[in-house]
Amino acid sequence: MKKFEEQTIQTESIYKGKVISLQVDDVELPNGKTSKRELVKHPGAVAILAITPENKIVMVEQYRKPLERSIVEIPAGKLEPGEEPKQTAMRELEEETGYKTDDLEFITSFATSPGFADEVIYIYLANNIEKAENKLEGDDDEFVELIEATVEEAEQFEKDERIWDAKTAYALLYAKAKGILG
Amino acid sequence: MKKFEEQTIQTESIYKGKVISLQVDDVELPNGKTSKRELVKHPGAVAILAITPENKIVMVEQYRKPLERSIVEIPAGKLEPGEEPKQTAMRELEEETGYKTDDLEFITSFATSPGFADEVIYIYLANNIEKAENKLEGDDDEFVELIEATVEEAEQFEKDERIWDAKTAYALLYAKAKGILG
Repeated sequence: MKKFEEQTIQTESIYKGKVISLQVDDVELPNGKTSKRELVKHPGAVAILAITPENKIVMVEQYRKPLERSIVEIPAGKLEPGEEPKQTAMRELEEETGYKTDDLEFITSFATSPGFADEVIYIYLANNIEKAENKLEGDDDEFVELIEATVEEAEQFEKDERIWDAKTAYALLYAKAKGILG
Repeated sequence: MKKFEEQTIQTESIYKGKVISLQVDDVELPNGKTSKRELVKHPGAVAILAITPENKIVMVEQYRKPLERSIVEIPAGKLEPGEEPKQTAMRELEEETGYKTDDLEFITSFATSPGFADEVIYIYLANNIEKAENKLEGDDDEFVELIEATVEEAEQFEKDERIWDAKTAYALLYAKAKGILG
């Protein structure tokens, strides 16, 4: 899995931020020429497909500054240093939705934008969720609204592009294909 | 779709590159407090789900510097200024794989990483593909190898994480759910 490897000649750090960092690498291409690669570094994230006992999909609506609009997504969050993805998934599910469970099943992982970023999302299926008695508090700059949708409602959200991100599109397709939504 | 809107107070441009730009916005949150948002600007992209007459999925293997490895993906490429996504899809399919068609069907679009980037991918299904007589040449810093895989081979690639990106995971799940792969 090193086909057409691009050897790093030099790395320039452009920015180190709260969520992402940016670096530009000079690379040697397979034909011996050189080029530049702009690389966004991200800690990685989890996302959780959770279905209520009433057969509704647990989602959150939140404002996404890069898109300058709010969208409806399955709950998700960034990995903290040293935290196992499964732990992050349990924590984020409770912080964002008030639901909790110990029964998380790994579905898949994927790179979201391999052309310019190293972000990988780990997707979990949350079984047997229940309302937490004392909800964990999330980050103080995060505002989310809980939305529980039937499969028909979720499909309408997709048509209207209220659902409009990769992890949620994947999770809904997965849920439908596997018959998880009954 | 402006729920929890974050008003921009100030924008600082950090970097303008070949593929992406980075800016940091100071924003006013719904509770009146302020925060910073790191925003990667990307022109958007297309990806193409193409099936050969022999019922194989057309993919390409290429080195992805952010991941420091090569992965197998459905063909894809960045939008050029002023180009319609469907045009980009036709061009990229031919440049990367040597296959062409006029019969492209829009499947869906989604934001890949709405937390930090504005990239949107438009996914097309390519019907009735055929080998181009004179293949278009791609970018001179792009090295790709054509891979045509049966559905069983593609599923094995996913298990092995040779297939490991959002658009390809989505497209394969879509193809299987819709019975496109026979």
